[in-house]
Amino acid sequence: MGADPTGIVVGLGLPPEAATGWLDDLTDGFRDECDLVGASVVGGDITRCDLVVIAVTAMGDLGGRAPVTRSGARPGDVVAVAGRLGHAAAGLALLHGGRTEPAELVDAHRRPEPPYARGPEAAALGATSMLDVSDGLFQDLGHVAKASRTGIVLAPESFAVHPLLAEAARLLGADPLEWMLSGGEDHALAATFPAGVRLPPAWTVVGQVIDGEGVQVTGRPMGRGGWDHFSEWRFPLM
Amino acid sequence: MGADPTGIVVGLGLPPEAATGWLDDLTDGFRDECDLVGASVVGGDITRCDLVVIAVTAMGDLGGRAPVTRSGARPGDVVAVAGRLGHAAAGLALLHGGRTEPAELVDAHRRPEPPYARGPEAAALGATSMLDVSDGLFQDLGHVAKASRTGIVLAPESFAVHPLLAEAARLLGADPLEWMLSGGEDHALAATFPAGVRLPPAWTVVGQVIDGEGVQVTGRPMGRGGWDHFSEWRFPLM
Repeated sequence: MGADPTGIVVGLGLPPEAATGWLDDLTDGFRDECDLVGASVVGGDITRCDLVVIAVTAMGDLGGRAPVTRSGARPGDVVAVAGRLGHAAAGLALLHGGRTEPAELVDAHRRPEPPYARGPEAAALGATSMLDVSDGLFQDLGHVAKASRTGIVLAPESFAVHPLLAEAARLLGADPLEWMLSGGEDHALAATFPAGVRLPPAWTVVGQVIDGEGVQVTGRPMGRGGWDHFSEWRFPLM
Repeated sequence: MGADPTGIVVGLGLPPEAATGWLDDLTDGFRDECDLVGASVVGGDITRCDLVVIAVTAMGDLGGRAPVTRSGARPGDVVAVAGRLGHAAAGLALLHGGRTEPAELVDAHRRPEPPYARGPEAAALGATSMLDVSDGLFQDLGHVAKASRTGIVLAPESFAVHPLLAEAARLLGADPLEWMLSGGEDHALAATFPAGVRLPPAWTVVGQVIDGEGVQVTGRPMGRGGWDHFSEWRFPLM
């Protein structure tokens, strides 16, 4: 939404037998990730639970600016993304296939690297809508299209397939573009900007906002993609 | 801490088969409770989970004032409480005993009524430390004593035993003062104030901050009381 991160609150549910070494590692991880953006763990709570449950609330400061929401996209805007797309999905597919190489992709699944600085940057550049890609670009842009009452067209040729994704796809007989369109958990940012905006190199224009509804991928039949929180598996783009 | 409540964020973990009627009731409950203080549900997230998990982060605005923490109690301060003490514990004991009367106590367990307005009031009155009594007065004041590097002495005769508590204690053969000292979940507020403060009637002075450590109850042997999150049962005061 364009805010500068300030702090997180962590709620933990733990079984009494939870290993304390593991808990120390978790705490260190929160601290290290917060350090990346100058935020800190400012509070939380702990309770007994049969499962390990971790609930995090992240807070930021807009400095008086209006938040960039999902509902501001307008026909004619360009759609751009910053951060990795499909790397985490490829890493998960590799692990499911019993592979640990390419290690960079497995690491991408295990330790995402959200492009934190791009959020405030996009806001300063006049982004009309924005969200992070947690459930897959296709599905998350669907949220933007719906909230903004517009359609979105993605141009597949604008997605530069990273050599590692191409390698993993060859190993697994998969389609790297499907990972990029329907894989979440890289926590890339997707935003819309007024046409004519000059974007820094971290941003790649991948489509356009149009009159209409839903998300289309030029040259690909419409399908459902992305993570459904109440289904076991990802639905592939069909 | 003396802030005015502004909003809550709710994280939900739900099994796919969770009844939606129940979820509507939960949502209504959040809204109704927020309405009591002019706050609102400002966000949240939802995910699949084998258990129903509810994680709430509450936010408030200090309006530039310093937060009232646990660490500011000073020897000579008075200890005062606002809100019900022991009602929820008595209600739970009644339910465990197979009773549903007195209904007011069972309701107190099922639907606590935290004295929300007393928090900012205490801050304005110059409270030196404050917390809500969620784990039992004895245990929670122990947190204040420890954080403030002081001792606390409670005067049992200052606790007015509510007639309903006396009735429930008679029915169950229990000690109402034990409920008041070790029962949490009424979410009363406990605060320390400089000696000589003039407190509104909602506040009852129940003790004093002293040089020393720990919490003592005059005339009762020291014991451990309150809720241990990693134990199944409350430890009675011994």
